[in-house]
Amino acid sequence: MNGAESLIKTLINNGVDVCFTNPGTSEMHFVAALDEVDGMRCVLCLFEGVLSGAADGYARMARKPASTLLHLGPGLGNALANLHNARKGHSPIINIVGDHATYHLQYDAPLTSDIQSIAGAVSHWVHTSRSAADIAKDAQEAVQKAGRNQVATLILPADVSWSDNPGGAESACVLQSQAPVPEDRLDTVASLLNSDKRCVILMGGTEIDNQRGYLFGQIAKATGARLCSDVFPTRMARGAGTVVIDRLPYLAEAAIEYLKDTEALILVGMETPVSFFAYPGVPSEMAPPTCHTFQLAGHNEDLDTLLIELVERLGADAVQPDTQTLDIPVLPEGALDAMSAAQALAHLLPENAIIVDEAATSGMPLYTALANARPHDLLTLTGGSIGFGLPAATGAAIACPERKVICLEADGSAMYTIQSLWTMAREQLDIVVVIYNNRKYSILEMEFGRTGARGGSPGPKAASLLSIGDPDIDFVAIANGMGVSATRATTAAAFNAQLETAINTPGPHLIDAVVPTLF
Amino acid sequence: MNGAESLIKTLINNGVDVCFTNPGTSEMHFVAALDEVDGMRCVLCLFEGVLSGAADGYARMARKPASTLLHLGPGLGNALANLHNARKGHSPIINIVGDHATYHLQYDAPLTSDIQSIAGAVSHWVHTSRSAADIAKDAQEAVQKAGRNQVATLILPADVSWSDNPGGAESACVLQSQAPVPEDRLDTVASLLNSDKRCVILMGGTEIDNQRGYLFGQIAKATGARLCSDVFPTRMARGAGTVVIDRLPYLAEAAIEYLKDTEALILVGMETPVSFFAYPGVPSEMAPPTCHTFQLAGHNEDLDTLLIELVERLGADAVQPDTQTLDIPVLPEGALDAMSAAQALAHLLPENAIIVDEAATSGMPLYTALANARPHDLLTLTGGSIGFGLPAATGAAIACPERKVICLEADGSAMYTIQSLWTMAREQLDIVVVIYNNRKYSILEMEFGRTGARGGSPGPKAASLLSIGDPDIDFVAIANGMGVSATRATTAAAFNAQLETAINTPGPHLIDAVVPTLF
Repeated sequence: MNGAESLIKTLINNGVDVCFTNPGTSEMHFVAALDEVDGMRCVLCLFEGVLSGAADGYARMARKPASTLLHLGPGLGNALANLHNARKGHSPIINIVGDHATYHLQYDAPLTSDIQSIAGAVSHWVHTSRSAADIAKDAQEAVQKAGRNQVATLILPADVSWSDNPGGAESACVLQSQAPVPEDRLDTVASLLNSDKRCVILMGGTEIDNQRGYLFGQIAKATGARLCSDVFPTRMARGAGTVVIDRLPYLAEAAIEYLKDTEALILVGMETPVSFFAYPGVPSEMAPPTCHTFQLAGHNEDLDTLLIELVERLGADAVQPDTQTLDIPVLPEGALDAMSAAQALAHLLPENAIIVDEAATSGMPLYTALANARPHDLLTLTGGSIGFGLPAATGAAIACPERKVICLEADGSAMYTIQSLWTMAREQLDIVVVIYNNRKYSILEMEFGRTGARGGSPGPKAASLLSIGDPDIDFVAIANGMGVSATRATTAAAFNAQLETAINTPGPHLIDAVVPTLF
Repeated sequence: MNGAESLIKTLINNGVDVCFTNPGTSEMHFVAALDEVDGMRCVLCLFEGVLSGAADGYARMARKPASTLLHLGPGLGNALANLHNARKGHSPIINIVGDHATYHLQYDAPLTSDIQSIAGAVSHWVHTSRSAADIAKDAQEAVQKAGRNQVATLILPADVSWSDNPGGAESACVLQSQAPVPEDRLDTVASLLNSDKRCVILMGGTEIDNQRGYLFGQIAKATGARLCSDVFPTRMARGAGTVVIDRLPYLAEAAIEYLKDTEALILVGMETPVSFFAYPGVPSEMAPPTCHTFQLAGHNEDLDTLLIELVERLGADAVQPDTQTLDIPVLPEGALDAMSAAQALAHLLPENAIIVDEAATSGMPLYTALANARPHDLLTLTGGSIGFGLPAATGAAIACPERKVICLEADGSAMYTIQSLWTMAREQLDIVVVIYNNRKYSILEMEFGRTGARGGSPGPKAASLLSIGDPDIDFVAIANGMGVSATRATTAAAFNAQLETAINTPGPHLIDAVVPTLF
């Protein structure tokens, strides 16, 4: 067994059985080993930004990490933006980055670069395997780190990959369990919630499934606290039957308004909320300066047990929390825009769908419109680095082949990782992609105004950098070029019909929804 | 004048008057300033990998740097692979990376990341501007660094950009001149060349224009030295009238064979040649262990004066070097393949064209086929990081609007930065793109064999990772989707006709050349 086989076998033994990849020469022994060791599903992506976003989407839905296989520093660089999103969303990934053979590094061959530094910026853990004898243990450590919702990056020199490893693979390791939340923290939060302070429970960077949502809902209902999610949750159960949870507004001004009377902010899996960007004259922190903030649970603490204990402590076991009713709107008529598209989606959304939302300004009506739709999961852009949606939908579909994935994607963001469509076609993934084609970086038009630059009004050069018309992008042609069927909708009726067909037909389909900007 | 205006004005005063960009909110004051300060041409790219490659192609042809404007760490990450190529090719670029306002960084907002570490991996110089009062001086320093053929990265916090700078802009600075080559080095190399040692002059990482080529040719002819370029030259004058220069083979085995009798290796702008990758049992260094290596000139030394002095020292002033004759082949007939495509190109290539070669295996016949074509410039992939060709062609066309750019591109590499096509359409650049569509990562099939993995024969899983058919990529559809006219050729006759029309028609055009793999 060589190093590569030992690595792959160890990953498989630990349940890591999907690898998103675009390999190169330095990874060829890993690639060869895939036919020697059973059980690793390999998914080829035409660009590394696709595969890192796919690994993120996979992890959020599979609740376990995928591996990636990347070609040296530049391959890792291409993957960086979506690894950033994964890191910010506490979504685990195990990156295997091929490197030159150890003895070859000294020669500074063309593809040599400082992989450690690049990896450090997007990983919780970075390690270089020094020999084939180490690789299985190193892989196990990466599994351990990923088990803590971390991005773990293992650098694999080519000679470590091809050298013989008599020790073979490691078997499944025991993942470190999540730390119990200390008793005194429970006491403190219970007394905070029981006080007459105006409390907001703010959740982010962790999955809010039905069970967690329900318990939070009982706590909120019993104590009068408000329940709110971060602007961009990693994964959240939504729709009929789920607990009513506010969403912190994206706009700093609106978030400040939402939190203005808050006296105690109880944080779950996130830090105190801050403005996405800085703006002249706008504070960075959203909570009032007098507000008391309290960390209920971090990422490596046992939130589920904590919630059960807290409900008990508060005597909220029998409380019925506020939940969303099922309330399906009629199909829209007339013009197609972000509002009518959201309404059509609320009408047609199948039960148990996965929604990936990277629709930017066009997505603004979605959160409200889908609150009373059939139950579904929502994944959002946790790190702000665009080009997340199409790849994440790809990974989510591989994690959950029995569920419909609906990717709601802004035109500008779509073009960042448009190569995802090819992997959707190759793997025949059950994904409906809706491109909101408004021919603008509309969010930047809005942000230009908010920064106050040039009195908030772009001149002609600035305006040309915010527009992506001229030429207009034809997403039907691009999708067809990568083997994905596609249609264009310019009216609500056409969109309704195309969305219904796409939802009822297995495999990938793209709708190029030509919409005006929301503002 | 605010910081952004002061920065832009300083760049313009120093001749840096093109900016390739995809900005975000933190860059909005820079974007606004473009309408306040005259003279900066801004080119929007739909993905940062396009803009960094465009800045590289621009610099190679304009012989001066462009600026880029990037959105925080993830934007820089997206640009990384082509910045790597620029760094390896000693192609100057001035990156402006927007960051959060200085006071906002402490809050770790979603888009916060370690920009310094990412930048460090692909830059010769990284600096963060601390105040609007510093920015003009900082920009001047970036200009100085880029003047030394370096990648200079200036991090621009949003508040530095928007704050008032009463000092205004800096005027043009005096670039440090290249150091003269010491007299004793001239003595040494002259005596080496005059000795009976078998000498090879190996040039890389620097432009070899007609003048330099001619002088090297005189030196080689007068002394019996062989003249050779690195595998992937940054920029090289080629075709009829240029000096005959060998090219070091890509394959390590062939490079070792080429250099096997060499007793003295005279290096120009590069280190001792090494194998692109390591392979079990193949040495890393290409020159024989007994070979004496000698550095003639580094990147910051005055090569042009050195060459004139060396020719004089060797009494080679009157020597007629071997030059390429004009020898245009007939147009090919029959099947379309890499050989016939190269022949058609040699027939049709217009004088003074710029060829960007990222055709991978399909490009192998090009170097020989174009040796006797009309005079042209050749740009190649200096850092091995694919996705270079389409962006570099974009930048080259902006640098040289009066010259035809011909981009020879492998299908797999094309998909890395396919968004380039949109910028070609928007700017109506005079580029002919030929996609060699063989539906394989053919170079990886070859490399799989060379690494000896699994006896050199990929199993079914490995084979699936080396093939990019299923679905086949339709580059005509993709190009049309981004506003670029395109045609498909499956015979030599069709390719000849399409190439002739494309060369004679201004503006971008893509030919989807369906070819078999070369092996």
